[in-house]
Amino acid sequence: MLPFARVTVIGLGLIGSSILRAVRSHMPTVRLTGHDADPAVRETVRRLDLCDDVTDTPGAAVIDADLVILCVPVGAIAAAAESFAADLPADAIVTDVGGSKASVAEALRAALPDATIVPGHPVAGTEHSGPEAGFATLFHGRWCILTPEDDTPEAATERVRAFWEKLGSNVEIMSPKHHDLVLAVTSHVPHLIAYSIVGTASDLENVTQGEVIKYSAGGFRDFTRIAASDPTMWRDVFLNNREAVLEILQRLTEDVTALQRAIRWGDGDTLFNLFARTRAIRRSIIEQGQDDERPDFGRSHE
Amino acid sequence: MLPFARVTVIGLGLIGSSILRAVRSHMPTVRLTGHDADPAVRETVRRLDLCDDVTDTPGAAVIDADLVILCVPVGAIAAAAESFAADLPADAIVTDVGGSKASVAEALRAALPDATIVPGHPVAGTEHSGPEAGFATLFHGRWCILTPEDDTPEAATERVRAFWEKLGSNVEIMSPKHHDLVLAVTSHVPHLIAYSIVGTASDLENVTQGEVIKYSAGGFRDFTRIAASDPTMWRDVFLNNREAVLEILQRLTEDVTALQRAIRWGDGDTLFNLFARTRAIRRSIIEQGQDDERPDFGRSHE
Repeated sequence: MLPFARVTVIGLGLIGSSILRAVRSHMPTVRLTGHDADPAVRETVRRLDLCDDVTDTPGAAVIDADLVILCVPVGAIAAAAESFAADLPADAIVTDVGGSKASVAEALRAALPDATIVPGHPVAGTEHSGPEAGFATLFHGRWCILTPEDDTPEAATERVRAFWEKLGSNVEIMSPKHHDLVLAVTSHVPHLIAYSIVGTASDLENVTQGEVIKYSAGGFRDFTRIAASDPTMWRDVFLNNREAVLEILQRLTEDVTALQRAIRWGDGDTLFNLFARTRAIRRSIIEQGQDDERPDFGRSHE
Repeated sequence: MLPFARVTVIGLGLIGSSILRAVRSHMPTVRLTGHDADPAVRETVRRLDLCDDVTDTPGAAVIDADLVILCVPVGAIAAAAESFAADLPADAIVTDVGGSKASVAEALRAALPDATIVPGHPVAGTEHSGPEAGFATLFHGRWCILTPEDDTPEAATERVRAFWEKLGSNVEIMSPKHHDLVLAVTSHVPHLIAYSIVGTASDLENVTQGEVIKYSAGGFRDFTRIAASDPTMWRDVFLNNREAVLEILQRLTEDVTALQRAIRWGDGDTLFNLFARTRAIRRSIIEQGQDDERPDFGRSHE
């Protein structure tokens, strides 16, 4: 039983193109349509033959869809939804993959007042961008969070859940506000800190950029991966999840200040106690299949 | 031409045991001796047959050595050096692998006033600890920094350089003070922030630890790897490189505060400009062979 027969993806970057590939791989009879605002991206997706049809307008992409998935940066979601609003079939379900959910839910509701909307967020990705970076297994074993409105028909939410499960994901349902807080912790603040530390390191006067690169295997290189993620997507996430990001950042700053004080006063016990308990979380992440169990993420050591 | 014929390793954890394996693999005729203060570790190294002889005392380990490598946490270096001082041959060279160098150089000089000392630091490792976690290729393509004293005979430094090059490393020479600043940027502060963010996430009241683990693929899991590193080793690094760590941490805090302000005031340009320039550093790190070029560090995506 396929949850949807005609799926349209709007925005064909890493996530959108991965969805195309994953649907082709897991639900090969689904009719797949794609659209991207950038003609070069459309051309690439046609050349790679990732879907049945790539349309030049968003309206043409949705006209026959029973599921429309918005895969654009969260700051572009309102305009993207408006661009196909007039052509959206009455019985189509609209979802998205945006990294913040409260503001996205509002934007989608305003742009599509009568549509059935089930906002979503697959917690998956890599540091690469664009249609050539996608792959069919990106969502395997990852969690996809759905944030339906209070009056969303349960049948609609369950169809979107079934769709993501077909792509290999686990699905969880929560409120947009709780999503935004959880993701501020597990994704947004880590990205902000990674971007920041890479910026700080490259702005120092007494350590050269060449030195930072040479000795990056001491830990720094781990941060550069997520600091290589798509700038537009991440700018929009921070502007759209301001409250939760600032709250978590404040907590982190307090905790870093306490460690700073421990270092200044030579308080080794405080440092040791923290460093000893953080190992357990890594162990749980690996046990629950959310990271590679091989040392060093499975990096090559030839 | 082998730089040393009889090498002794004191401290047989991840790094020490990797040196044993690497010497066996790259210089199989070298006579290898090991010692660890922990009898269980000595037993493991004997069972794994990583060296020719595992001695029960540090003195017996060095008595015939021409190179002694201290692979203990930097806070334990003084005591370790004192423990074999009386048995050290006059012509032996002593080096170490400690992550901070100014305090280590002082400690080694105080413990071994007449020895030839070439402090060193191979910038390599994984999040795993202990003799079973080591492997022979750990130093391949990584940089090893040597911080000889002003009056260290150049021939001694060159022999230690040749040793590390045989293990597959590149070698750079700098002052202990500059090493400590560079490593504060590329290793120590990243570790402190990673430990801190994992601590913050697990202490929240309104986000459960289960949620943090489930959605860790959003970025958080990257930080948990280095936050799973050896607690004793890292406590000692922070206590021994206080000044440089606090200096870099202060810079980072200022930069994070500026981003916090940009988020609060909706200043997307500041965010975008930073996020766009940090990609270039990742590219250079990969081009210079200091990280895996595969997306997501080469993590498995099955």
